[in-house]
Amino acid sequence: MDFCKIFLQPKEDIRIRQGHPWVYGNEIDHIEGIIKSGEIAYVYAYNNEFIGKGFLNTTSKIFVRILSRDIDEVIDEEFFKQKIKLSNQSRLDLGFKNSYRVLFGESDGIPGFIVDKYDAYLSIQILSLGIDLRKDMFINILVELFNPKGIFERSDVSVRKKEGLELFKGVVYGEVPEQIIIKENELLMEIDIINGQKTGTFLDQQENHNALKPYVSGKTVLDCFSHIGGFGLHAAYHHAKEVTCLDISEHAVSQIEKNAKLNNLSQVKAYKANVFDQLRAYHEENKTFDVVILDPPAFAKKRNDIKKAYKGYKDINLQALKIIEPEGYLVSCSCSHYMDQTLFIEMLADASHDAKRITQMIDFRIQSKDHPALLGSDESLYLKCVTLKVK
Amino acid sequence: MDFCKIFLQPKEDIRIRQGHPWVYGNEIDHIEGIIKSGEIAYVYAYNNEFIGKGFLNTTSKIFVRILSRDIDEVIDEEFFKQKIKLSNQSRLDLGFKNSYRVLFGESDGIPGFIVDKYDAYLSIQILSLGIDLRKDMFINILVELFNPKGIFERSDVSVRKKEGLELFKGVVYGEVPEQIIIKENELLMEIDIINGQKTGTFLDQQENHNALKPYVSGKTVLDCFSHIGGFGLHAAYHHAKEVTCLDISEHAVSQIEKNAKLNNLSQVKAYKANVFDQLRAYHEENKTFDVVILDPPAFAKKRNDIKKAYKGYKDINLQALKIIEPEGYLVSCSCSHYMDQTLFIEMLADASHDAKRITQMIDFRIQSKDHPALLGSDESLYLKCVTLKVK
Repeated sequence: MDFCKIFLQPKEDIRIRQGHPWVYGNEIDHIEGIIKSGEIAYVYAYNNEFIGKGFLNTTSKIFVRILSRDIDEVIDEEFFKQKIKLSNQSRLDLGFKNSYRVLFGESDGIPGFIVDKYDAYLSIQILSLGIDLRKDMFINILVELFNPKGIFERSDVSVRKKEGLELFKGVVYGEVPEQIIIKENELLMEIDIINGQKTGTFLDQQENHNALKPYVSGKTVLDCFSHIGGFGLHAAYHHAKEVTCLDISEHAVSQIEKNAKLNNLSQVKAYKANVFDQLRAYHEENKTFDVVILDPPAFAKKRNDIKKAYKGYKDINLQALKIIEPEGYLVSCSCSHYMDQTLFIEMLADASHDAKRITQMIDFRIQSKDHPALLGSDESLYLKCVTLKVK
Repeated sequence: MDFCKIFLQPKEDIRIRQGHPWVYGNEIDHIEGIIKSGEIAYVYAYNNEFIGKGFLNTTSKIFVRILSRDIDEVIDEEFFKQKIKLSNQSRLDLGFKNSYRVLFGESDGIPGFIVDKYDAYLSIQILSLGIDLRKDMFINILVELFNPKGIFERSDVSVRKKEGLELFKGVVYGEVPEQIIIKENELLMEIDIINGQKTGTFLDQQENHNALKPYVSGKTVLDCFSHIGGFGLHAAYHHAKEVTCLDISEHAVSQIEKNAKLNNLSQVKAYKANVFDQLRAYHEENKTFDVVILDPPAFAKKRNDIKKAYKGYKDINLQALKIIEPEGYLVSCSCSHYMDQTLFIEMLADASHDAKRITQMIDFRIQSKDHPALLGSDESLYLKCVTLKVK
């Protein structure tokens, strides 16, 4: 027997059978055969029933990431090519065109691999050993399917260390300029694949950016944690009277200004500011807005952060609610999976109470459709974007 | 002292301070002054702090429904007129035009009163004694604000009995024809204010009906629990190839057929069927669809129903998943508040597992924006509409 068979402890198969693609090291009863990280391992329940197979990595807490639940399915280049092709087609079917997430790792059946399309370029992220070892093959597949001008790898995330992988960032195919212009909904956005957030920018908010439309026409809008201006510029595009964007990064501020010019949206102003402080300053000077948008970074990156994160979310939401005009709107986001839907709504109710504002939830949205959440795999549902009408 | 003062037991003020507008009888410590149902009562915490005032009804489990949290605010015709005006304006601001919920009771600050606009008519529902006693005043306000051709009262819901109120249904102003034609998004819909569901039809799904657009073009669509065809007709409007609507009611079927004609949507067929049976029948005859929509009635009308309801939801979702083509979509709704967001997603994961289908959640929606959910008042968040991509 030249392949690895992993037998789980009793009941440890349940979560995996329900769709979750991760087998943790501490769930394993015993292993038979040759243990080789980066190669396919076969996973069995305690009663010897086969439940799935996927790449093994004994360095990671996630021992196996399931690729197939069919014992006979061949895991080869063709297997991966078809998965990527199908995943891309599902985005095209939904109307995505210029820039979108082509493949969302676990959710699209290739755990640990992310592929984003930015106009004629691809930006990839590799988060597991099995994929990393086959990087050349994956690049071949992507070149064949997309014929991109260039592919950039943004594997510069610390989570790779947990897989025993070095951080890496660089061009892996063709040429990739520092700045490229993509189309997000009806706007042009200059983004920075090399130094921008995530694989370049936050594609997961693109539908939420556009969902501002009913709230902003003729209004004063404050966009907090603006990054490259996604929410603020969409507000201006949908006829906001005045848009103020705040970001802690000087680089972000100049990017917002460039993008405002690119779209002739002269009503957008961007300032370098700490949002926590600035919201308090506005309140002190009695400055108000019709619409405030909060799109902070994830305050809870692990389960233990959740109490502190709750306080952080509550603080900014409370401060924002204080400076919103009666009959105005708060658009409040959280990209932390651990801040779940129920807890996020509870926090908003809590903040409303402390701000002495009556609030109605009129919209509840999740991440864009090109970032599907795999049912059975809680981690993949992470973004919440709630609109409150503020009385 | 000629007014009623209600003092709560310790800690019973917390939920109310957090925004919930109901004071239950079993939360009360003692009452001072004249107890007169239908009149304003002042509510105090155990420590004698004023927390709100509203109409009293000692017959109901809900003793007081809070109208104001300002002790000096005058509760008169003008008070109610301004609330209704503001609530209506908030819908106009969001782009609602022909038909929408003008006032959603508790959420819009007038507990126990619902006002829906259907083209030139209003349909109202009164669910509390305080409102019922002032019906003439409310009708005057509505006539002044909307100048409707007619107002129909649909107070034919059994929950009124808990308030000690008789069921009532009838014209309360002007004239109201049995059938009227409203505009829902871009479609014409003939609805029946007098005998239709709720106050005539399900306005709370209007935005979800239209959200089918990305999923249906060129596809075969099955719309289950169709009522007057909201989902099915929108699917056809957005270029579905074939639409099959199922409803248990003969009346609904003929209404769907009429509405299909009204919009020249000849690809819509409607059949009288028990959805539970019909989904199984399709599976047995190997009939499949690209898109299946499930919009069942509330299976859980009270907390104790939830286990049985979970089974019911799981059963139809499981059966639906079995007849969806690979790469198809399931659009699944629940209008039961007790089936909360987390439980609904859990049920969908459970059904997916049993149907042996991998599913991705690509959209999570709530009720239309004209049915705002009051934060702090859980009951007002009730509708969920999830889209799954089915692998």
